[in-house]
Amino acid sequence: MVPVRMSRTGQGSNSAQLRHFNERIVLQALRRLGEASKADLARAAGLTNNSVGGIIRDLEALGLVRDIGKKREGQRGQPATMLTLDPAGAFAIGVRLDRVGIEVVRVDFGGRILARRGHDMVLPAPDVAVDLVTRDVESLLAEVPPAERVRLAGIGVAQPFNLGSWLRELELPSSSFKLWDDFDFAEALGRATGLTVFAENDGNAAAIAELFYGKGRQIDDFLYVFMGGAIGGGLVMAGDCVHGVTGNAGDIAMMPVPGSRLPSAPAPTRPFDVLLTRASLTALKRHLTWHGIEAESLAEVSEVLARRPRPKAVSEWIDDCVAALVPAFLSVVSLIDMPHIVIDADVDGGLLNELIDDLDRALEAASPESVRRPLFFRGSFGPEAGALGAATLPLFFNFSPRSSILTGAAGSIRETHHAAE
Amino acid sequence: MVPVRMSRTGQGSNSAQLRHFNERIVLQALRRLGEASKADLARAAGLTNNSVGGIIRDLEALGLVRDIGKKREGQRGQPATMLTLDPAGAFAIGVRLDRVGIEVVRVDFGGRILARRGHDMVLPAPDVAVDLVTRDVESLLAEVPPAERVRLAGIGVAQPFNLGSWLRELELPSSSFKLWDDFDFAEALGRATGLTVFAENDGNAAAIAELFYGKGRQIDDFLYVFMGGAIGGGLVMAGDCVHGVTGNAGDIAMMPVPGSRLPSAPAPTRPFDVLLTRASLTALKRHLTWHGIEAESLAEVSEVLARRPRPKAVSEWIDDCVAALVPAFLSVVSLIDMPHIVIDADVDGGLLNELIDDLDRALEAASPESVRRPLFFRGSFGPEAGALGAATLPLFFNFSPRSSILTGAAGSIRETHHAAE
Repeated sequence: MVPVRMSRTGQGSNSAQLRHFNERIVLQALRRLGEASKADLARAAGLTNNSVGGIIRDLEALGLVRDIGKKREGQRGQPATMLTLDPAGAFAIGVRLDRVGIEVVRVDFGGRILARRGHDMVLPAPDVAVDLVTRDVESLLAEVPPAERVRLAGIGVAQPFNLGSWLRELELPSSSFKLWDDFDFAEALGRATGLTVFAENDGNAAAIAELFYGKGRQIDDFLYVFMGGAIGGGLVMAGDCVHGVTGNAGDIAMMPVPGSRLPSAPAPTRPFDVLLTRASLTALKRHLTWHGIEAESLAEVSEVLARRPRPKAVSEWIDDCVAALVPAFLSVVSLIDMPHIVIDADVDGGLLNELIDDLDRALEAASPESVRRPLFFRGSFGPEAGALGAATLPLFFNFSPRSSILTGAAGSIRETHHAAE
Repeated sequence: MVPVRMSRTGQGSNSAQLRHFNERIVLQALRRLGEASKADLARAAGLTNNSVGGIIRDLEALGLVRDIGKKREGQRGQPATMLTLDPAGAFAIGVRLDRVGIEVVRVDFGGRILARRGHDMVLPAPDVAVDLVTRDVESLLAEVPPAERVRLAGIGVAQPFNLGSWLRELELPSSSFKLWDDFDFAEALGRATGLTVFAENDGNAAAIAELFYGKGRQIDDFLYVFMGGAIGGGLVMAGDCVHGVTGNAGDIAMMPVPGSRLPSAPAPTRPFDVLLTRASLTALKRHLTWHGIEAESLAEVSEVLARRPRPKAVSEWIDDCVAALVPAFLSVVSLIDMPHIVIDADVDGGLLNELIDDLDRALEAASPESVRRPLFFRGSFGPEAGALGAATLPLFFNFSPRSSILTGAAGSIRETHHAAE
């Protein structure tokens, strides 16, 4: 019998963890409500007025919550002091590494991107990337008044899992990518900057942005899908991002699907093809090229997608993409009983609405007896999802009420500490 | 836009919940260690010696933990008092409803089945079943000395999701099953017995038995698969059973797979077939019949499976079953990053070992670049899994450290209260 990794759960909890958790529950309630009185928050969080009062005092002192004046609720009674999150109370730096670009952004506590640096380039060797990103981080921090820099929650890094894989399907050169497979970028960036770095794969990071700042303010359970050069995803269950034992839960790119019916698709090398080969903008571009339509940049692809009447190449790819997504989503529904799917994309031109309509129709035809169809939603951030997701990691990790705070259980974002003090 | 179910998470926690949780963490540590000193438990649970001392005093008073004498640890030092769970400290009744049988068992806190009642029959109409099971519960309770009856943790009911569905694939008459689709058996049984009833679908219940009394004592994350007349499953992540929004997470029976290659299989009615049609003992029996081999009962099927040389009909079905399980398991690995799969079955005759070997080989051939293969394990309880799973529900619900105790979050077993007092 093979050796088994021993349990990581099973740790008790204490009252410091409890206070910590309740503070975050109050922040969450305020993030969801937008503005609220202490009584509203106590009701929403299931806490006593007293403990909410103490928590709000602390959060105000930290600058995370501010008073926006009194408001009368209903017809009678005293007007209540209304509270809201202060966007200036914290900020984070996000680094999105992609196979074809690097983006570095500064984001406030309200989830707004305040500044950015970008590099459109095939990802360079790891040490070159560390230097580049370190300079960007320094320049983004230099714009922040020195007194405000203590509000930095940390740096978040989002990068595709296994950068050196799937290069054939993504039509990329293999040269420098292989160097990335054994390179710990978050660790190197932590060392270079002296700051705390949080890392997740790009699908989970974008899902966390959607959870913290997007649809997650209304729904607690969704599969998040991002259609980019590759297809990425993340899994939100009971209000938390499911990390998975190796950090790759929600990696729908690798889900098995039948081979593509498009003549432009590469022949599968194994009994099943993977979703990545069919449902990705790389597959779309490949099919456009096969039809003699050149569209290299995302802007060019969006332009082709927006053409009316729809080019035949686009319709053919959408059909093939939907046919590939149907068994993947049927698996999601039956395996994790998932009622909602949020889809976002790096382009638009009407693509998302059409995908959602077609998927809805195709799932109606394909869903087995007694299996409910999921509801589809458009994602909130489009091409910003990756960079915002990266920057959300430190904010989510520091300010979200994850049950692992209480239990010490699995599922935490990987964190590299390099105290700046 | 469609209406959205509002968030159920977001509740704060308090110190009573905390004590509650830590008690269960100590019980879990003791269940995993078998026997342990207070110092061992404090170490395993990450709690202070003081708080473990207080918790143990309470658990001893409740009869859940007992002292088994002193033992010297290592060469030096005072011998320490060793503790163990007391199997007599609690008990539960489990009711397993199946399309072709009813089983009612009494199980102790150690997970041992002490007594049982069984009915091999196509499931009767709901009201008839309630009467039958109520009489069995009463007769099982009558065997318990009156003073001990207060130790009853409750009744657990495990039944397939949507009993009235999939009758064609399972070769069953539709007559009485349709009545079950809108019938709340747990509620009716609670009313008839005046006892608290916990309900889960059969796959989740068996997974919970494996989590509480089987492999879950060593591993925190596994997909549980049970091969019976249908195929069932449950999902264990971070040491808890994932219930799912409608209670059907882990329902792998409905996962989409390509159509069967066996001439005995019914033609699929939709673009994809479901795993149920190919990977189930019903599919095996159908294929045996097609080859002229009659095997009606589980004992007869086991006998056919044990024949050497292996009948051609059996090998053909195993190949088709493995071919259907491969895409399902590839989906599980990529979607939820699942490292372990536990498989159990209602029969043996060498089936489980052969399935596991074949699956391992087939997944090696089919796994995409950079995707890890899961490790397979045999389940712990075989044909007992269903009934033990049902009885485990009240014990798990009352004595397992689920993080939802602290957070009030989603995922609890459905519970029907009918206080007996």
